[in-house]
Amino acid sequence: MSAAVKGRLIGVGTGPGDPELMTLKAVRALAEADVVAHFSKRGANGNARTIVGEHHRPDWIELPLVYPVTTEIDKDSDDYKTAITGFYEESAAKVAEHLDQGRTVAILSEGDPLFYGSYMHLHVRLAHRYPTEVIPGVTAMSGCWSANGLPIVQGDDVLTVLPGTMSEFELTRRLADTDAAVIMKVGRNLPKIRRALEAAGKLVRAVYVERGTMPGSISMRLKDKEDDKAPYFAVVLVAGWSGRPGADQ
Amino acid sequence: MSAAVKGRLIGVGTGPGDPELMTLKAVRALAEADVVAHFSKRGANGNARTIVGEHHRPDWIELPLVYPVTTEIDKDSDDYKTAITGFYEESAAKVAEHLDQGRTVAILSEGDPLFYGSYMHLHVRLAHRYPTEVIPGVTAMSGCWSANGLPIVQGDDVLTVLPGTMSEFELTRRLADTDAAVIMKVGRNLPKIRRALEAAGKLVRAVYVERGTMPGSISMRLKDKEDDKAPYFAVVLVAGWSGRPGADQ
Repeated sequence: MSAAVKGRLIGVGTGPGDPELMTLKAVRALAEADVVAHFSKRGANGNARTIVGEHHRPDWIELPLVYPVTTEIDKDSDDYKTAITGFYEESAAKVAEHLDQGRTVAILSEGDPLFYGSYMHLHVRLAHRYPTEVIPGVTAMSGCWSANGLPIVQGDDVLTVLPGTMSEFELTRRLADTDAAVIMKVGRNLPKIRRALEAAGKLVRAVYVERGTMPGSISMRLKDKEDDKAPYFAVVLVAGWSGRPGADQ
Repeated sequence: MSAAVKGRLIGVGTGPGDPELMTLKAVRALAEADVVAHFSKRGANGNARTIVGEHHRPDWIELPLVYPVTTEIDKDSDDYKTAITGFYEESAAKVAEHLDQGRTVAILSEGDPLFYGSYMHLHVRLAHRYPTEVIPGVTAMSGCWSANGLPIVQGDDVLTVLPGTMSEFELTRRLADTDAAVIMKVGRNLPKIRRALEAAGKLVRAVYVERGTMPGSISMRLKDKEDDKAPYFAVVLVAGWSGRPGADQ
């Protein structure tokens, strides 16, 4: 392997959690990779690394990219932004070292790499410098509506994907103005999300989902959920297609 | 096989076009299916059937569901609605016959079955009557932004998925009010979509994609596209994440 030959960067979507929801292309990329990089928190493998577990090869060079401990820092502060930007810069440099050695580097990304994925922070720093391929994956939201057999959008429906971090006013306004919605980043925003759905007249159609396609998955009508406890990665789904057969049952 | 034992219905997402973007679970479902149903137009296999071609088994019972010829009928007319509803009712009855014989029926769906898929019309007629599983797939839109290495949404971005069939006013209003957008059903709506993007200040960021992950794929900045010819299934992507490194280059 010549150091003059640049390696290949592959952003690998691992899908929403069930290892069987990986694509054939993702599995092939793992079989061809010299280096497998994955984001994680200190002391734990990330979800994406767990999903690909059974495709692990002992000759992989594993490159865990461990987020700096920032739980004590306000996410809107300059300190946080400096820490996280520095982390992405360092991570890109570590990946680039392997690419410069001519190695194929697979960066794992839960769900779909370019849809809210951490992979994107490396993609924008490296894709213009190295041959790069992005392998799309099944998104967490697809995993959630499929596991619940919930027809989300049909025909001329508008779908809006919203972060639960928005203000109550913005959430309400946007929920009132769409056929279907996916609300991500639920966690401690749940009481606010509930109020916004109620004000927008859509609480009755809202479905709450935890851990979508993973073991221990929980789903219920949001109006039947008695407490306001929710993990950050829970989602709330509001199906469109109001004219479907049986929609009013 | 006893006729008293109900068969199993599986909605199988085949992904956006590249056969390697099928999931392991979809491939397994095809291996286990007794009957493989797929929507098509008269005289041609549907895209989903083409995608799964190499997994074809000679002992499959193939059940093509051929759309009635409706090109002469206005899609908003009562005649069209009667014809298409009758077609879905008949198709559901054909699938139910096999399920009543205890057979496992896989219904193919391009992309993700519950995301604008024809499968949904059978799902709402059958899922409450038979054991049903929906296998999510990579959507056409994920295939398109991945093939173009286009980071579509990050952080607290709002994504809006819009049909190009909307009025120019509605398209403009919604495009002006979102971070990222996917416009589907392009076809002869392209001139209107172009004007709406211009009015919303987003034409400069719009990317036009034809046949996403399939052979003969075309993509370019929409502002560089010189004609207004577009197939119905082309998409226009507007990436969010305006604060990303290199976004202004």
